[in-house]
Amino acid sequence: MEKNAKGQSGLFSLIGHKGDVMLIHFRETFADLNQVELKLANLRLSDYLEPTTSYLSIIELGLYESSMKIYKELTDQGIELYSDQWKAEIECKLNRHREAMRPRLYPEIPPHKYACFYPMDRRRGEEKNWYTLPIEERARQMTEHGLVGRRYAGEVKQIISGSIGFDDWEWGVDLFAEEPLVFKKLIYEMRFDHVSAVYALFGHFYVGVRVAAEKLPGLLNGELA
Amino acid sequence: MEKNAKGQSGLFSLIGHKGDVMLIHFRETFADLNQVELKLANLRLSDYLEPTTSYLSIIELGLYESSMKIYKELTDQGIELYSDQWKAEIECKLNRHREAMRPRLYPEIPPHKYACFYPMDRRRGEEKNWYTLPIEERARQMTEHGLVGRRYAGEVKQIISGSIGFDDWEWGVDLFAEEPLVFKKLIYEMRFDHVSAVYALFGHFYVGVRVAAEKLPGLLNGELA
Amino acid sequence: MEKNAKGQSGLFSLIGHKGDVMLIHFRETFADLNQVELKLANLRLSDYLEPTTSYLSIIELGLYESSMKIYKELTDQGIELYSDQWKAEIECKLNRHREAMRPRLYPEIPPHKYACFYPMDRRRGEEKNWYTLPIEERARQMTEHGLVGRRYAGEVKQIISGSIGFDDWEWGVDLFAEEPLVFKKLIYEMRFDHVSAVYALFGHFYVGVRVAAEKLPGLLNGELA
Amino acid sequence: MEKNAKGQSGLFSLIGHKGDVMLIHFRETFADLNQVELKLANLRLSDYLEPTTSYLSIIELGLYESSMKIYKELTDQGIELYSDQWKAEIECKLNRHREAMRPRLYPEIPPHKYACFYPMDRRRGEEKNWYTLPIEERARQMTEHGLVGRRYAGEVKQIISGSIGFDDWEWGVDLFAEEPLVFKKLIYEMRFDHVSAVYALFGHFYVGVRVAAEKLPGLLNGELA
Amino acid sequence: MEKNAKGQSGLFSLIGHKGDVMLIHFRETFADLNQVELKLANLRLSDYLEPTTSYLSIIELGLYESSMKIYKELTDQGIELYSDQWKAEIECKLNRHREAMRPRLYPEIPPHKYACFYPMDRRRGEEKNWYTLPIEERARQMTEHGLVGRRYAGEVKQIISGSIGFDDWEWGVDLFAEEPLVFKKLIYEMRFDHVSAVYALFGHFYVGVRVAAEKLPGLLNGELA
Repeated sequence: MEKNAKGQSGLFSLIGHKGDVMLIHFRETFADLNQVELKLANLRLSDYLEPTTSYLSIIELGLYESSMKIYKELTDQGIELYSDQWKAEIECKLNRHREAMRPRLYPEIPPHKYACFYPMDRRRGEEKNWYTLPIEERARQMTEHGLVGRRYAGEVKQIISGSIGFDDWEWGVDLFAEEPLVFKKLIYEMRFDHVSAVYALFGHFYVGVRVAAEKLPGLLNGELA
Repeated sequence: MEKNAKGQSGLFSLIGHKGDVMLIHFRETFADLNQVELKLANLRLSDYLEPTTSYLSIIELGLYESSMKIYKELTDQGIELYSDQWKAEIECKLNRHREAMRPRLYPEIPPHKYACFYPMDRRRGEEKNWYTLPIEERARQMTEHGLVGRRYAGEVKQIISGSIGFDDWEWGVDLFAEEPLVFKKLIYEMRFDHVSAVYALFGHFYVGVRVAAEKLPGLLNGELA
Repeated sequence: MEKNAKGQSGLFSLIGHKGDVMLIHFRETFADLNQVELKLANLRLSDYLEPTTSYLSIIELGLYESSMKIYKELTDQGIELYSDQWKAEIECKLNRHREAMRPRLYPEIPPHKYACFYPMDRRRGEEKNWYTLPIEERARQMTEHGLVGRRYAGEVKQIISGSIGFDDWEWGVDLFAEEPLVFKKLIYEMRFDHVSAVYALFGHFYVGVRVAAEKLPGLLNGELA
Repeated sequence: MEKNAKGQSGLFSLIGHKGDVMLIHFRETFADLNQVELKLANLRLSDYLEPTTSYLSIIELGLYESSMKIYKELTDQGIELYSDQWKAEIECKLNRHREAMRPRLYPEIPPHKYACFYPMDRRRGEEKNWYTLPIEERARQMTEHGLVGRRYAGEVKQIISGSIGFDDWEWGVDLFAEEPLVFKKLIYEMRFDHVSAVYALFGHFYVGVRVAAEKLPGLLNGELA
Repeated sequence: MEKNAKGQSGLFSLIGHKGDVMLIHFRETFADLNQVELKLANLRLSDYLEPTTSYLSIIELGLYESSMKIYKELTDQGIELYSDQWKAEIECKLNRHREAMRPRLYPEIPPHKYACFYPMDRRRGEEKNWYTLPIEERARQMTEHGLVGRRYAGEVKQIISGSIGFDDWEWGVDLFAEEPLVFKKLIYEMRFDHVSAVYALFGHFYVGVRVAAEKLPGLLNGELA
């Protein structure tokens, strides 16, 4: 795990044919991420690396609970939805909220042995469509969903990132744990809460074992970690 | 960004594995676009470039509001839909309208630092089918949709192009901004307006950082921008 | 465009990454098409060509109107559907009809500057299923659909071919025009007629600019057309 | 067409980009098929062959009619469905039936000039689900379906094979004919019988022209057949 | 079949184009599986091997029957679902159960001649959604499903593994038998039980013939097994 002024990178040995290694980069801007890519391509090592996939997203907080509270406050004050005043007020309140949450927006890569990544969507089916539900209903379901996650907080570190407009799914999920079985337990249990059972669509899953950065060249030469 | 008598080309360093660079070409005809491709293939540089994807479309204006007005005028005059007279009249009126809009049909590539491209369809599902909605309903939904876009006009430059008959999706969307977060905000907010929530289907998303054309050879050699 | 006793071949420079060139071969039998492929593979040129896709189909006429008339005649004569007599009669009548249409079954490749190809299916969804509609309803919708096509007859030459049992979609559509914008106009307008709005499913779209056959070697060397 | 004690292999020149040649192997066991593959890989010729696809299935008879008769006999005798006695009886009766049909289970590869292969599924949709229909209904639909096939028996030789548990679709269909147009006629006509219209899902279609085995090396060198 | 202190690996010659060989590794931890991969990449042999696919899962027991019994016990004792007490109790009871089942959780790779692997999901459709069914209904359907499997217990060895959170499908199924026809019989019969007919979605199927490990180098050189 490399760490510098601008962010961190984690290195994992992927299990299975989806790739040899998975690199996780936390940076403050997309331009910084772009620089990481260019730096990697610049390394002599890159002759042995062929990118098979990638995912671009930004860390976001589950703001359903607080957003709903703010929305309700503004409505109660009689401010018209999406009016200029509304936009100014909500921007201001959400910014204040985000400022308070800032440490959670710029986390470090957790130090656990195993990582699991998968992207996901909320379903927009012809009958079951997350985006046509009222915000109160979405907030209620997200709260129920969050309760499952919290029960696993001690065993799994979850980092949710948003990728609408950035990549092919709407969210990316990074899980970190000392023991990979807990990934399955957590996701299996969540699959039965309403929002996941009805509205979650999943992409590919990637599971890797952490590798110290200095071991990368050996790993690519087939040396045992 | 190269500019000549016939059009402009923009160069972006793509983030992620979907490609190293994204080239955006604005030209007046398809034959001109074809020439750009052949010229590129002719460059010594092209030995280092392998096309991974492309998208062919023409810039179009959101004519729902004006079309509906014209349709209504003609109907009010008792002209039969799709009759020869109707066809002649509408052609004439739309041409006049397009002439007035012409500068918007031949825009320059916006100069912003970040670009986002994605193709999209209107859903033709078994139950929810955009193409069986009455034009008034489509116009109403497009107007609501446009209002969201306009709120972001200062931060994001949107260029909508049509590709029915040209490529595998119905529309292409180019967004340009100084700050990529606004891509996510705009598209996320739009996802809840009715036409997007129910009828929008999205292809792959491509996000790039602008690069000066003279930096391309270095970029392909892994030099930092 | 090569022409000989057995058929014609047209050459187009494809726009975009889907291929460098598109070859359209009109031949009288599948064995002849197979020979074209083998001949191409035999050319020294073929070292520079790698097939990326292909489509196998036979030109067919929109026989809905005439078929329905024939079906009705036979039914009115009290001949049982799919009985031996029915089969003999319909075979005979359709053959007579086809003979009259024969020039349209063996057309020349139109000489226009632009070509557009796409394959398509009629939907067999759980609710909306073309193949469970009564023939009268199918004929009615195809007639409405044909009217749109006829309005564009002067600007676009359409050649419909059938590929059930031959390739992965049910039909192939070749459009030829001097001006590619008309491809979009035609297909966009058709998308709103009932049979397309509800029952049409589309594959990839390919758009090319005609190239004289003798220019092919230069084209593959990146020379400008 | 190679023939030996253990089975037969047919060679076809595929039309289109899906492959250069299609090999059809009829063998008595999967182990024998595996040996064919290894033998092929052992030939010097194999340096010029790269497998693009394959399909593994076993020839089966349309036993719906006879199965239903047997099921009914057992039920009429008051034997409980899937009881031990039922299993023993049905096994015995079906074996007797299969023995009588044995020549049809080990056919020779028909000698016709053209071959067509495609895999297919019976739909298991949310509303329309073949596997939840009562067996009587399935038998009725299969009988109607079979009648279409029989009308073409003189022109097309059909060999149906089952691949549940062996490959990615449920059935494979091999058609052989002197004239390829009949593939289209047969499959088009079948598309309107109820079981195909509602329940059939199709994979890729492969059409080939027969080649004598001794012509293979020439074929791969681009020599004309 | 290699066996050591930490687990077993089985080698199969795959039938068809999906790969030359299939390796099945049973190990106690994901880190051990990762080591197997790295060891393989370290062999000189690996120059001839290119991974085409893989599947990561852990063996699990069909606990529906016992889980339901435990759930019912806790409910009958008035313990609130998902409360801290409930979680502690169920963890404890399930652990006790698992301990008793432990030999089934760490099986040896069955020694049969043929292996069949396929991944599967339970459907989460808009109408038919396994994850919104009450647990009693799921347990009832799984019990019916299990009865079919048990009837084949003498002929097919089934090993079910779970992969939620680990790979792209929810379960992996390994079947082993001396005679491959039984794979088809078993899966075909199961396709009609309710849970499979309505809720099962299947991935690719892989069928292989066992090969002694020492034959691998010869196999890759095209020698006959």
